Amino acid sequence: MEPTRRVIPHFQDELAQLKERLLVMAGEAEEQLRLSMQALTDRDHDLADRVLRGDAAINSLHLEIDERCFKLLALHQPVATDLRVIVSAVKINSDLERIGDFAINIAEASLRYMQHPPVKPLIDIPHMAEVAQRMLRGALRGYIVHDMEISQTVLSQDDELDALKDEVFRELLTCMLNDSSTTEAALDLVLISRHLERIGDHATNIAEEVIFIASGTDVRHHSREGVSGEKPGGAPEVT
Amino acid sequence: MEPTRRVIPHFQDELAQLKERLLVMAGEAEEQLRLSMQALTDRDHDLADRVLRGDAAINSLHLEIDERCFKLLALHQPVATDLRVIVSAVKINSDLERIGDFAINIAEASLRYMQHPPVKPLIDIPHMAEVAQRMLRGALRGYIVHDMEISQTVLSQDDELDALKDEVFRELLTCMLNDSSTTEAALDLVLISRHLERIGDHATNIAEEVIFIASGTDVRHHSREGVSGEKPGGAPEVT
Repeated sequence: MEPTRRVIPHFQDELAQLKERLLVMAGEAEEQLRLSMQALTDRDHDLADRVLRGDAAINSLHLEIDERCFKLLALHQPVATDLRVIVSAVKINSDLERIGDFAINIAEASLRYMQHPPVKPLIDIPHMAEVAQRMLRGALRGYIVHDMEISQTVLSQDDELDALKDEVFRELLTCMLNDSSTTEAALDLVLISRHLERIGDHATNIAEEVIFIASGTDVRHHSREGVSGEKPGGAPEVT
Repeated sequence: MEPTRRVIPHFQDELAQLKERLLVMAGEAEEQLRLSMQALTDRDHDLADRVLRGDAAINSLHLEIDERCFKLLALHQPVATDLRVIVSAVKINSDLERIGDFAINIAEASLRYMQHPPVKPLIDIPHMAEVAQRMLRGALRGYIVHDMEISQTVLSQDDELDALKDEVFRELLTCMLNDSSTTEAALDLVLISRHLERIGDHATNIAEEVIFIASGTDVRHHSREGVSGEKPGGAPEVT
């Protein structure tokens, strides 16, 4: 952003900058997620506190990117694919901001979790976080290079994430039923797994946008039918 | 949508139609939420099943409204407030679609909940749903009539919703700890209360957009500071 510059910059330069800023924001969101998970697994209060205080960069990028999109639309009045790329950036920006919020939610739940003895060794939840991070990275890469294949991989990873979430839920429920002293702590782990699931949903949204831009095919409400063949139409993307 | 029409319709007519379609979509989302809550309180399997099958209208409106926004941007190349109103419509459309998904999630959790005896009389959760519905209605009314006061009321109702969520959580945790046979059912009620909280978050997003359009002030990341004075900057909107 160069407020003193008087000429209208070249559209393609501005568009490239917009994408770069989205990448920076995705990096910030991913880092917050990584730190929140490390705080959970290491039972590190200070790290969790750092995540809670660490969303200023994401919030400021959220406002900046929205404004960049607005200015690109107002000054250059793009059409066709360029217009779709910018409208998608508005949505992706919201998705990334929300992912940052979920990292905060995970840090909050982790702080509560640390007040109790560990319920069980944490294996599936860190695994969920890895899948979610991979989805986020893939979704952004797909957007930057307009690659439908990368984006479709993200959609199938979402099925993996959902299966892990169900597995985590069953295990934690068993813990609670076998030993009610674990209930409070296990509940926080259930909530963390739901936050991770939602992060995956937002990555999925981004991937679906990319497929829409690249192919003109709106996969959002017949999502994954043509990809895995597993999800019939009408099923919600968020479960 | 009239594909056979060849002339470019008047911009203001198209904009009015866009708003009307958003209202229709909000009505559909609200109805799905109302039915999912009725299914829960009446322990009505058929009604819950109806909600699960009932998102086709919302999904189709989601695609239609996105396309309307795209066409308005491409054909009329609006600037200033009109541009903000349309970009906001893109975001509100995503929020409403997501709210519809949460109604489905509530119906799914309700079906699981019905497999067990009731944990406790349902009072606070239906109350949460009422607040969420009020927020949704207020958020849309604020958007349609560009009314900041209505929108600011929505922001303060979100605090009420969060307080109810905490109360519900404490009560259900107590139930689980006192009688572990309630654990599985109580867990589904916790998840339902979280879905309702998220619906409130999406209504809050919409209200914040409206305040931005009407005032030019971006309240998103200093949310509610000027309204209730309770939330310092930096706190995430999603908790």
